[in-house]
Amino acid sequence: MKLIIDTFGTDHGPESVCQGVMSALKKYDFYAILVGEKALVDRVAKDHGVSPDAYEVLETDHAISNHDDPARSIRRDPEASQVLGLERLNEGDADGFLSGGSTGALLAGGLFITKRIKGVDRAALTTTLPGKKGPFILLDAGANMDTSPDMVKQFALMGSSYAEVALGKANPRVGLLNVGAEPGKGDKRSKEAYELLQDAPINFVGNIESRDILENKADVIVTDGFAGNIVLKALEGTLSTVLTMLKEAVMSSTRSKIGGLLLKPALKKVMARFSTKDIGAAPLLGVQKSVFKMHGNSDAETVCVGIKNLIDYIDGGVTEKIRAKFIEEQDASV
Amino acid sequence: MKLIIDTFGTDHGPESVCQGVMSALKKYDFYAILVGEKALVDRVAKDHGVSPDAYEVLETDHAISNHDDPARSIRRDPEASQVLGLERLNEGDADGFLSGGSTGALLAGGLFITKRIKGVDRAALTTTLPGKKGPFILLDAGANMDTSPDMVKQFALMGSSYAEVALGKANPRVGLLNVGAEPGKGDKRSKEAYELLQDAPINFVGNIESRDILENKADVIVTDGFAGNIVLKALEGTLSTVLTMLKEAVMSSTRSKIGGLLLKPALKKVMARFSTKDIGAAPLLGVQKSVFKMHGNSDAETVCVGIKNLIDYIDGGVTEKIRAKFIEEQDASV
Repeated sequence: MKLIIDTFGTDHGPESVCQGVMSALKKYDFYAILVGEKALVDRVAKDHGVSPDAYEVLETDHAISNHDDPARSIRRDPEASQVLGLERLNEGDADGFLSGGSTGALLAGGLFITKRIKGVDRAALTTTLPGKKGPFILLDAGANMDTSPDMVKQFALMGSSYAEVALGKANPRVGLLNVGAEPGKGDKRSKEAYELLQDAPINFVGNIESRDILENKADVIVTDGFAGNIVLKALEGTLSTVLTMLKEAVMSSTRSKIGGLLLKPALKKVMARFSTKDIGAAPLLGVQKSVFKMHGNSDAETVCVGIKNLIDYIDGGVTEKIRAKFIEEQDASV
Repeated sequence: MKLIIDTFGTDHGPESVCQGVMSALKKYDFYAILVGEKALVDRVAKDHGVSPDAYEVLETDHAISNHDDPARSIRRDPEASQVLGLERLNEGDADGFLSGGSTGALLAGGLFITKRIKGVDRAALTTTLPGKKGPFILLDAGANMDTSPDMVKQFALMGSSYAEVALGKANPRVGLLNVGAEPGKGDKRSKEAYELLQDAPINFVGNIESRDILENKADVIVTDGFAGNIVLKALEGTLSTVLTMLKEAVMSSTRSKIGGLLLKPALKKVMARFSTKDIGAAPLLGVQKSVFKMHGNSDAETVCVGIKNLIDYIDGGVTEKIRAKFIEEQDASV
């Protein structure tokens, strides 16, 4: 298996990405094509004792950043790391691409360079979140605004195929994010999407209220990118606020510091269940190739986990599953 | 001041509501019109040593419930507590109405019986949430789906007038819930609403990401009822999950139980800042009278606080402020 990895774009810089790739080369069976500066890659490889036969470098010195216009840059900057990587992916000898850079650029590149699977109107970004009883998948996480009910259904088809592999669940339960649990709830889009999801070739379990989002009532939760992004960031924000306040309470007196120390192991154990440490990157679903996005704050360890996720995704044949799902769907609706 | 209070509709039952009203009668200066069963009201009044001169009873034995069709029931059930209360409010001798029953029925009753203020297309439900540095107001909390950008602007005008009184802030900062902080972000509705909010007679501070929702970057956050409800319930759900896990950690061993005990006072102090105990009820904004909704799980104490909120709202002349704001707005746009 050949994987292309963008060394640019993460907060920790290219060296950290290279370190993650070298760790992964020692753990997993793949050939790496690193997009970045050869001198740096070679140095990190040598430090890790990785043979030059295990990788090659697609030389460039920059990426499309979050401040650039994504669609414009993808078309006009052929030397950007994302463009080089995706073009190489399109040539067909590599199996997947991983980048921690601009989400917009990856999305635009996925659409313009890699192209969509037939029947897919919009590629979607997923996010894997920690539920009480294990991870679940939310999409669209913010790539697409003003989606139609049919696009939400497409997210469900894609998310279901992805969850089979990422969560290892046959026939994953798919829920629709909504303002109430009963059918007939929600805005126009949600009501129409509900109807479409009932007839789709997936295991649709109905509406999921955001109050229950961490309760694992569904393996995949689908929604428009606006609502998906809002709910995702509300979770992040609330968690971060509560943890800050907890720390503040612990640090406020000697008594509470001792309390915090005594409580720490138990808290750590409970929190461990509530973790996404096995998820380092997530796919851009609906494009013809395996394109993965890692978070901008990914460190070397996360890069290594992200590479494992990409390998599993390719091994699991998710792109082919999605392709088959859309053919099945189109046949059914004829 | 005369206040009408629906004794039906809360989870704790009419007796608990009556107890809250009696406590309020002893603390605040108002005359109570209780909608419910006279025998019960008289008994609770006697228990509390409240004179029969301090209140009257609008007799009925039922309310419109969450299972009834709100609009249909409002039109067809003249003896329902919500209909009796709102009709009495309309007669003009009372100043406000408070109910803990069906939100849909109160909303429908507000629209059909109390009627909207001129220029208001949709009445909105608000919710007051605990930010890190104090409470803030979110609207619409779920009453209106598929709102237009102009309706979102109307929510901003109403929310701003309400926040002046409820938060005691002159010129409250109004933010738009969105997927990014920069202008130009979001779905079509949000982009158009942003433009309208910039020209509105309010202190518009731009987009607020849901990640920052507890950071008090705005005093009032406006959005469509779908997104508002989603973000509200995501906050509730995340908080409840984290607190459950914290309790679980504390209870898991003797060591952690001692840790929990030592930490408790500090945690309580930190959590006290993060509280909405001064908020017992919230207004239906945009109707011609003062109509307040309390949560279904309100106990006697919350009812008492809710009555205080309603008194402050009436004393603060919020309805008149909103009326003036819409006249100002219409004059400006001519």
